[in-house]
Amino acid sequence: MGPGPGNPYPEVMEAFGRPVLGHLDPEFLELLDDLNQRLRQVWRTDNRLTFPVSATGSAGMEACLVNLVRPGDPVVIGVNGLFGARMCEVAERCGAQVVRVDFEWGQPVDPEQLLSAHPEPTLIGVVHAETSTGVRSELEPLGSGKGDALLLVDCVTSLGGIPVEVDAWGVDVAYAGTQKCLGVPPGLAPVTFSDRALERVVERPQSWYLDVNLIAAYVGEGAARAYHHTAPISMLYALHAGLGAILDEGLEAAWARHQACGDELHRRLPELGFELFAAEGYRLPELTTVRVPDSVTDEAAARQRLLADYGIEIGGGLGPVAGQVWRIGCMGHTARMRNVEMLLATLVAVTKE
Amino acid sequence: MGPGPGNPYPEVMEAFGRPVLGHLDPEFLELLDDLNQRLRQVWRTDNRLTFPVSATGSAGMEACLVNLVRPGDPVVIGVNGLFGARMCEVAERCGAQVVRVDFEWGQPVDPEQLLSAHPEPTLIGVVHAETSTGVRSELEPLGSGKGDALLLVDCVTSLGGIPVEVDAWGVDVAYAGTQKCLGVPPGLAPVTFSDRALERVVERPQSWYLDVNLIAAYVGEGAARAYHHTAPISMLYALHAGLGAILDEGLEAAWARHQACGDELHRRLPELGFELFAAEGYRLPELTTVRVPDSVTDEAAARQRLLADYGIEIGGGLGPVAGQVWRIGCMGHTARMRNVEMLLATLVAVTKE
Repeated sequence: MGPGPGNPYPEVMEAFGRPVLGHLDPEFLELLDDLNQRLRQVWRTDNRLTFPVSATGSAGMEACLVNLVRPGDPVVIGVNGLFGARMCEVAERCGAQVVRVDFEWGQPVDPEQLLSAHPEPTLIGVVHAETSTGVRSELEPLGSGKGDALLLVDCVTSLGGIPVEVDAWGVDVAYAGTQKCLGVPPGLAPVTFSDRALERVVERPQSWYLDVNLIAAYVGEGAARAYHHTAPISMLYALHAGLGAILDEGLEAAWARHQACGDELHRRLPELGFELFAAEGYRLPELTTVRVPDSVTDEAAARQRLLADYGIEIGGGLGPVAGQVWRIGCMGHTARMRNVEMLLATLVAVTKE
Repeated sequence: MGPGPGNPYPEVMEAFGRPVLGHLDPEFLELLDDLNQRLRQVWRTDNRLTFPVSATGSAGMEACLVNLVRPGDPVVIGVNGLFGARMCEVAERCGAQVVRVDFEWGQPVDPEQLLSAHPEPTLIGVVHAETSTGVRSELEPLGSGKGDALLLVDCVTSLGGIPVEVDAWGVDVAYAGTQKCLGVPPGLAPVTFSDRALERVVERPQSWYLDVNLIAAYVGEGAARAYHHTAPISMLYALHAGLGAILDEGLEAAWARHQACGDELHRRLPELGFELFAAEGYRLPELTTVRVPDSVTDEAAARQRLLADYGIEIGGGLGPVAGQVWRIGCMGHTARMRNVEMLLATLVAVTKE
């Protein structure tokens, strides 16, 4: 119950047992096409170029930036936590002229401030669900107000857990991770590029491994299936199965399940004396942040007891809130009411010394 | 029995079933340390910075180059197949002034030509086992003659299958993949950096995801365990188990098993009328290349029959030898004499139309 990885769906663990086919085997390519179609359903998009990058979530971030940012490009990035700051760092390494707009940790990004930060940005970047603070930011105003800029969104902790509407909200490019609300172990980074984004893709990005011009020739349905790199077969089986579990349940039902767990945590934790950290109205159901109670003198030791005595992991704070907050994940297969009850009971136990 | 992925060791498939721990869980960190120690044994090195990059083999190539090449650096690269050419492409994207030294496909790299190609290269790059041709190149003369240059070696298809002696041969930096002779599905890229290489690491490489300065703070034993990216837990379990299987068998015994399978293929295929493609004396036991027999008018159809009728994959040719050669892999758990016999029998069947 940390900020990810969560527990994988049972179907995912079963999928790891499948025989390892070659990356050019027709049976595997059919599964890959099916996987990408499932991703489109979960992303709520018709984007043709929708596929999992063969690396973890942060490589998804880098894949988006490296393919869309040219040296000197003015890029506006909203920073209300660690992952917004990381986006600035990666964009700078692509040569961007980064316009960083900071917000208090625990607060959402203010779309108006982001939209007025630069007259003509080529790209506006924002984190939908900040894993470091448990805060959700609004995407719709950015999609409608972006003008000529591309809207890039980090959905690592939102995809599969709360509504993400790539097409309806005007998101041009987005990335996620598998180990959060998709209920799959870490290892892949689903991304989606709109046709509008594809028109602006860098011809020869500084990264060969993440070059979508080359990758598209392999992953695209009806593509030449030109070998680029060896696809991570077993992880792709796992993601295919995880998406299947979500779609079998129903995407809205999965969102509702995450919401119910989050609502219960947000209601009960204050009753038990814990102060919620994230701003009201913007709290993520899949990732709840609480201030470490004053009664706890050694917060790391309390988390260690939770792990050692009860086998439950929760996360500590990062950056400016290190030592001050705990992060409680309820993601993917972990988002079950029984886990909420177990967490509440054991958290009380380890904080009452 | 294609050029990779091969079949994983049974222990590897079992390991996928392990519960997914967090990337900061002490139990997981212990496994990671143990994994890296196993990698050192297989690489035959004491290099402190030895770990698996969280992406596939080609990202290992990019990780090595992006951390060691500065814009304008003269970099000598031997090209006797597709993967040498790829190394040039990746080095160019890092800004290197690439001195490309070409050799005929099917022949090894000539160390003398490589060493005399530039008076003061910062790096010399070579592919140990060319997956596109089935050829092994000699590393020792490069290690002893490299002068002030760093020696970078692609061991994707050699590690675990034939002798690789990182320390004894003077290799400064090397990368591999998991899906060849290590008997693990694709998804990770083991790399090793000598202290000599570490002294020359770029301070802020263009890739954030592959920045070894940041990764070392997480993977190194005794490191701060500073979170960089979420480790791909399940794939790491798989690699840990695959390395365990190899070390339980004995690394030399695993080499001998690959050699025995290769020797048998190299002896029997000509008897059956197939012409071996790779230069004699430099043939890889784990990857055998043969010219497509004249009697076969449609080589792709023959491979398709092998797959459809017998469930056996072999690889076609790449680049200048596309349509002209077949690539037969005998790697990891696939390197068993029963598979050699099965392949020979079925290959005869599908080529006699």
